[in-house]
Amino acid sequence: MDFNAQLDAALKRLHDEGRYRTFIDIERQRGHFPKAMWNRPDGSRKEITVWCGNDYLGMGQHPVVLSAMHEAIDATGAGSGGTRNISGTTVYHKRLEAEIADLHQKEAALLFTSAYIANDATLSTLPKLFPGLIIYSDELNHASMIEGIKRNGGAKRIWRHNDLAHLRELMAADDPATPKLIAFESVYSMDGDISPMEAICDIAQEFGALTYLDEVHAVGMYGPRGAGVAEKLGLMGRIDIINATLAKAFGVMGGYIAASAKMCDAIRSYAPGFIFTTSLPPAVAAGAAASVRHLKTAQHLRDKQQENARILKARLKALGLPIIDHGTHIVPVHVGDPVHCKKISDMLLEHYGIYVQPINFPTVPRGTERLRFTPSPVHTAEDIDRLVKAMDALWSHCALNRQQLSA
Amino acid sequence: MDFNAQLDAALKRLHDEGRYRTFIDIERQRGHFPKAMWNRPDGSRKEITVWCGNDYLGMGQHPVVLSAMHEAIDATGAGSGGTRNISGTTVYHKRLEAEIADLHQKEAALLFTSAYIANDATLSTLPKLFPGLIIYSDELNHASMIEGIKRNGGAKRIWRHNDLAHLRELMAADDPATPKLIAFESVYSMDGDISPMEAICDIAQEFGALTYLDEVHAVGMYGPRGAGVAEKLGLMGRIDIINATLAKAFGVMGGYIAASAKMCDAIRSYAPGFIFTTSLPPAVAAGAAASVRHLKTAQHLRDKQQENARILKARLKALGLPIIDHGTHIVPVHVGDPVHCKKISDMLLEHYGIYVQPINFPTVPRGTERLRFTPSPVHTAEDIDRLVKAMDALWSHCALNRQQLSA
Ligand SMILES: Cc1ncc(COP(=O)(O)O)c(C=O)c1O
Ligand SMILES: Cc1ncc(COP(=O)(O)O)c(C=O)c1O
Repeated sequence: MDFNAQLDAALKRLHDEGRYRTFIDIERQRGHFPKAMWNRPDGSRKEITVWCGNDYLGMGQHPVVLSAMHEAIDATGAGSGGTRNISGTTVYHKRLEAEIADLHQKEAALLFTSAYIANDATLSTLPKLFPGLIIYSDELNHASMIEGIKRNGGAKRIWRHNDLAHLRELMAADDPATPKLIAFESVYSMDGDISPMEAICDIAQEFGALTYLDEVHAVGMYGPRGAGVAEKLGLMGRIDIINATLAKAFGVMGGYIAASAKMCDAIRSYAPGFIFTTSLPPAVAAGAAASVRHLKTAQHLRDKQQENARILKARLKALGLPIIDHGTHIVPVHVGDPVHCKKISDMLLEHYGIYVQPINFPTVPRGTERLRFTPSPVHTAEDIDRLVKAMDALWSHCALNRQQLSA
Repeated sequence: MDFNAQLDAALKRLHDEGRYRTFIDIERQRGHFPKAMWNRPDGSRKEITVWCGNDYLGMGQHPVVLSAMHEAIDATGAGSGGTRNISGTTVYHKRLEAEIADLHQKEAALLFTSAYIANDATLSTLPKLFPGLIIYSDELNHASMIEGIKRNGGAKRIWRHNDLAHLRELMAADDPATPKLIAFESVYSMDGDISPMEAICDIAQEFGALTYLDEVHAVGMYGPRGAGVAEKLGLMGRIDIINATLAKAFGVMGGYIAASAKMCDAIRSYAPGFIFTTSLPPAVAAGAAASVRHLKTAQHLRDKQQENARILKARLKALGLPIIDHGTHIVPVHVGDPVHCKKISDMLLEHYGIYVQPINFPTVPRGTERLRFTPSPVHTAEDIDRLVKAMDALWSHCALNRQQLSA
């Protein structure tokens, strides 16, 4: 058995398809984000502007977050030293869970090391709690939800993206007595579109199904206290389980679910991905709690972010660039080819000091390769101006299509 | 469908079996570990000594680790702001990977958010790289390995714990042309026993199989540079993939694999659990790198830990307590009943200020419930003395069995 030859073949497939990933090595400088240093493989350095991070509000450098982390390190040390059950539950974890439960107006919250594992562990454990459970999953749900749903071979139905008629059709075809759950996201991060949440809740009610909502790209960003799209729409009470991350708008790391006390207790007790792993470092929990708390009132950061997103979209549109606009905070520009996508990204980085990673399969479907820009409140008018001019120049240079300006 | 009734039933099963878990809320005080404050549910506090953490060497409060974390927060901020591919690769991640590759004398290393997800993601991805792969898994392998092996429904064979004859029998029964991998641990953390690593490597060689070794409880602890049992035995070169954590002896958080450059590149490119999640915060990576580096030379910490483990075992043995002794750093005392186990743990905490979590099913098989003590170099002679006296008193109080002192 020649294992090396098989590894070569697996890697060659990626190179052949133009989707072998090269990681860009960057070094953010506290207080200067979105500016950062790019460390080239040859050791040379160049200052760049990060345009593809998910630290949407710049909380990753906010003083309230950093001082909470420093304080926790001074008070308690580095790691937690154990799983949640075996010496790894601290006041920092409890406080953060309370902060999150309050944010989503749920009885309880349960921390995981990431939203990836929160999705995976929760969705794979629910069929153990509700034998026979069928999970109805939007076809564009994130990889972590898909992995969780597939894990234990439970029953699943995939509905076409945001297609309510299809969802209803699938649910109606199943035995009314079978326990059911609808799993979906609020903001789909690669297109920036939003799910028809109220209608989905209505369908869930009609069929007596649980609702499971991933608000990973919406927490901190939407709703008067930053609890996400469900808060903005007044629908939090109709969502049974809310999943989100502490690593994007909250700027730190970690993931969670918020739900009824019973639901959290059962997941806590039965999910291997919760039980058998070291808990988050207290300093991470402290930083995340400070961020969640801060964003409950910092509406100006959300407003400024939305404003910058609107400006960037309007200016790129005015140049006829094929942007995908669903009115959210994410600005994707369609390219449609992995090699081209990487090429433009490379040129932006090398010639203009603009860092935007090409988004290729499997993150998005083949043929929909794109550049995905994430404006934040700390991007200046000048940053935006430089980006728009660079895109304009490159689009001409590469003779890429522009949309009808009248469209 | 009454979802609440089903949750009640699931929780009742745990209560009925005496294995409902209550998390003890503790607050470590930097510089005073293993001392910590216990926050009771009623809000009152009590000073305790932690005897069940996995911060085996006290690195979670070591100044080199804490100052590396402080510095990284000051230099770069809180979170990484992205997945490894999309703006989340930093110099801190690259330095830590280089430190780990050097530790294990491998070409490369790949960071994950935990050793749980490193096991799960790697073991579930290998069958995609090597179609038809059969994984031979020790029956006592950790939950994270089991989850990874089961995930995609790949072929698996479970061999009886450390039973070489059984392993060989299973391997001989399969088609010699099928790709094979043997997955095992070095130190099994609940009994503290060690696998027959050299013989397993011989069998792997005989059948042309890959070797996958979880050194989670051994890194930092064994071998002249703290690379684990494989280093101590001079076998690192015969292990294809080494998995370990940064959250136990290294005192911080995170997990990894170390392997050939090709292997790491392929896992990096194909494992959803690596690709689709935010990378570790730079400060966590910086703290972990400092810890790994420090333990490459800090043999005195390993020596002191082993000495404390030997003393504790000798003294508990002298009292006739049923300790499980395989000569490693872990000191399990057999109880054999979940209710009893919790009771003793509660009394140790409440009456003696000694915190040792009861270890019940599913962490260990039913009937083997135990207390698992983890002496460290920062436990003093007086700490040990108080623990031994408390155990002696409780064993008498509860009329528990003692072994023949002559045994
Ligand atoms: C929709 C969605 N859910 C979950 C996750 C996982 O979040 P985390 O980075 O906390 O693992 C991501 C991205 O990382 C995501 O885009
Ligand atoms: C043998 C073994 N492997 C893996 C893990 C997971 O490590 P981590 O805490 O980094 O997820 C653990 C315990 O947590 C373990 O005991």
